[in-house]
Amino acid sequence: MDEPIEKLIEYFRSLPGVGKKTAQRYAFSIIEGARENAVNFAKAIVEVKDKVKLCKECGNYSSQEICPICQKRNQKLICVVQEPKDIISMEKVKTFDGVYHVLFGCINPLENKGPNDIRIKELLSRVNKNGVQEVIMATNPDVEGEATAMYIAKLLKPMGVKVTRLAQGITIGSDIEFADELTLEKALRSRQEI
Amino acid sequence: MDEPIEKLIEYFRSLPGVGKKTAQRYAFSIIEGARENAVNFAKAIVEVKDKVKLCKECGNYSSQEICPICQKRNQKLICVVQEPKDIISMEKVKTFDGVYHVLFGCINPLENKGPNDIRIKELLSRVNKNGVQEVIMATNPDVEGEATAMYIAKLLKPMGVKVTRLAQGITIGSDIEFADELTLEKALRSRQEI
Repeated sequence: MDEPIEKLIEYFRSLPGVGKKTAQRYAFSIIEGARENAVNFAKAIVEVKDKVKLCKECGNYSSQEICPICQKRNQKLICVVQEPKDIISMEKVKTFDGVYHVLFGCINPLENKGPNDIRIKELLSRVNKNGVQEVIMATNPDVEGEATAMYIAKLLKPMGVKVTRLAQGITIGSDIEFADELTLEKALRSRQEI
Repeated sequence: MDEPIEKLIEYFRSLPGVGKKTAQRYAFSIIEGARENAVNFAKAIVEVKDKVKLCKECGNYSSQEICPICQKRNQKLICVVQEPKDIISMEKVKTFDGVYHVLFGCINPLENKGPNDIRIKELLSRVNKNGVQEVIMATNPDVEGEATAMYIAKLLKPMGVKVTRLAQGITIGSDIEFADELTLEKALRSRQEI
């Protein structure tokens, strides 16, 4: 195929989860779309690289020094997540008015990632500085996320801060029949009176 | 979320078949990737709009006046397709050494698309000019594609050119059990001696 088209297809293929067919479809939609749209698309890509940095408080992506969430919300309640994309999910819960802290990963010996490779130090200094009352651990509910939550909890508790963890149990709207045994066991142990 | 990120997500969402989650994933991969990669990606998008036009012969996307396929291959054998993306599929058949002709659609009364809205006139003048021996109709095997193939065949036959259609039948590697009845009927009618 033609060289400029090939090149664009290659760039689309470098996006996560995009195969050859999908990349072709994307490239053709650019070719068939308006020139103005393509130019603005291109600008948005470069702009995001130039403007977006990490928020100095929470580590989330932001085009401001301190992100809008850290500027406006309750600093005494911190929700700790592994990745910026987890914040997008958490933000769907409209009732949460605290701030976040992005670890950028979790403790994972298999990937040679220790406590110093994620943003734990920054979390501790935030807790110290701002008189934080509660830290909610929202790391992933897998072995590594669990271990990371436990590790951080151990560091935080001596500082007199309440450390909590997102509840684990059966998914709302799901079917008991298809729940895995680990989840069911956890749901049983954490059962609550009604 | 942050404005430059939102903007980029919106542009990714404008690509065919991309939902919110996927667009977010793409945007984050740009943020997390190298700046150079983002700049080149952006360049590739604009370049494709600036350089890629339609080949004057076949109508396929090309950055040259006459596309590489039309320049090098047998002009006397033309394969007629509905869209440029169909050429990519056909080109997987390494044994075909003819050229293509892109109609950009098919005759479709429901979409108010008549014979003058697709590139039929251009096809007729190519056939006239180049002493074409065979035209293979590779329009889609649905009602509209079928009707378009028949319509074009009627115009071409008086010009003394052989007109053929891609064979229709059961898919190789598939299961008779799951073949639809129209395909089976066609396969039965077009059965061949072994």
